[in-house]
Amino acid sequence: MCKEDFIIKAFSNKLNGDDGAVLKKWCLSKDLFFEDVHFKRSWLNLEQIATKAMLVNISDAIVMNAVPKYALLGLSLPNLSKKEIKNLQKGFLKTAKQFNIKIIGGDTIQSDKIGISITLISKVKKPIFRTGLKKNDLLAFTGKLGQSLKGLKALQKGKKLNKNHKFIKPKLHPKFFYEIAPKISCAMDISDGLSKDLSRLLKCNHLGVSLRKKLSKKELYSGEEYEILFGFPKKNKKAIKKIAKEYKIKLNIFGKAVKGKYEFSGREHHF
Amino acid sequence: MCKEDFIIKAFSNKLNGDDGAVLKKWCLSKDLFFEDVHFKRSWLNLEQIATKAMLVNISDAIVMNAVPKYALLGLSLPNLSKKEIKNLQKGFLKTAKQFNIKIIGGDTIQSDKIGISITLISKVKKPIFRTGLKKNDLLAFTGKLGQSLKGLKALQKGKKLNKNHKFIKPKLHPKFFYEIAPKISCAMDISDGLSKDLSRLLKCNHLGVSLRKKLSKKELYSGEEYEILFGFPKKNKKAIKKIAKEYKIKLNIFGKAVKGKYEFSGREHHF
Repeated sequence: MCKEDFIIKAFSNKLNGDDGAVLKKWCLSKDLFFEDVHFKRSWLNLEQIATKAMLVNISDAIVMNAVPKYALLGLSLPNLSKKEIKNLQKGFLKTAKQFNIKIIGGDTIQSDKIGISITLISKVKKPIFRTGLKKNDLLAFTGKLGQSLKGLKALQKGKKLNKNHKFIKPKLHPKFFYEIAPKISCAMDISDGLSKDLSRLLKCNHLGVSLRKKLSKKELYSGEEYEILFGFPKKNKKAIKKIAKEYKIKLNIFGKAVKGKYEFSGREHHF
Repeated sequence: MCKEDFIIKAFSNKLNGDDGAVLKKWCLSKDLFFEDVHFKRSWLNLEQIATKAMLVNISDAIVMNAVPKYALLGLSLPNLSKKEIKNLQKGFLKTAKQFNIKIIGGDTIQSDKIGISITLISKVKKPIFRTGLKKNDLLAFTGKLGQSLKGLKALQKGKKLNKNHKFIKPKLHPKFFYEIAPKISCAMDISDGLSKDLSRLLKCNHLGVSLRKKLSKKELYSGEEYEILFGFPKKNKKAIKKIAKEYKIKLNIFGKAVKGKYEFSGREHHF
């Protein structure tokens, strides 16, 4: 059992096993984005750090079918210049504006590394959870997996990435997701790699998977993709395909939920 | 301008200048509690760390007349043993139980120091803000200030404190506060020392103070007291005194709000 699992168990009165907790019409989610855990200063500039911190949190809300409305920021910051703080601020404010989020407060402390803790308060009518998958539901993910791991490896070799690279700026699909939401049974975003996240999804639904096609290593083990992993009843396949086409989202229907277990094997996505 | 002030200004679309943001019937507050910023590992054991992290957050909610209901925990943790994690958990769960708070989720990462970020979601009917003070209102604080600074100094000298010492475990006054709330005009908790916090309170109300008695250095400069600083119309003095007596709370009416400015002078509470 890894430490996070142990800690999650230790605080097992979570309202659900999801990243967001649903309280009536609100979904609350909180994610940490820390230097030397999630990023290195040499990889992202301050605006990019703030932007990515926001996006990975917004991703959590979207895949629960929740629309982010408010954010609280907890910042631990080393000695930054005013210009650097302005750049950090720019990342938060631009992303907040883009998603119509109001930053309503938070806390700031001095620290030797950058640590960002964001709490998002999102409106939700019909939440989509990780649970809800039924036997024979189809399983799919969006986009092309592997890009993020490739970017990470390049950075580790000292190379630079284009500012629109997925590792620098995850691409979210809110409109697509909100439209398919009524037609799907469960969802989560791919943050730790398809293999690890799929095993989590199947485990909490007490199901296994029958793969329709072989998944490549880069598909299985690339984390921080922020693509969407979801399940849906077969009868909705046509409608979902149509919506994906409309939003120009690549749809990979890779398997079917079956009785049994899926065991995670291989590497986790850590640098 | 200190960095926190600059950052607060940079994110100036805060719903108000308070530690908690009010959204309809909910008050959201978020505070960080970090090793080597707020505490040293040698000063508090893990249960005490978790307990104090919870209490300083709960204090924020109470002084806004909000009743904490839910908490999200963001934990950055070094390599702790399972026993140590259990002790940390004990602090969170015992305090949550004591205040009827449900821990509904959060995030955990590995780090070299302990960092705790708590978001509290509290019910509020009639919020009390830092603003609202009127000219001629009386100003008061609860309890006996100075204990926390004294404890801090002892710890810095390598001494140990009793587990019930205010620096280890702040004493909050929820029942007292909820009862005086309809009779007061503004409030905040004393976290950075009366002098600093009073200057904040007066500044946001564009008022000054006429002191009724000289305040001692230990009263002015002891931070992390989590006693309550508040203002109220003179006509409610008798009623408030009665409530304080009922709850055995020492009430210090130390001044009156007047036209003018109060400038903070002296030390801030930092170790």
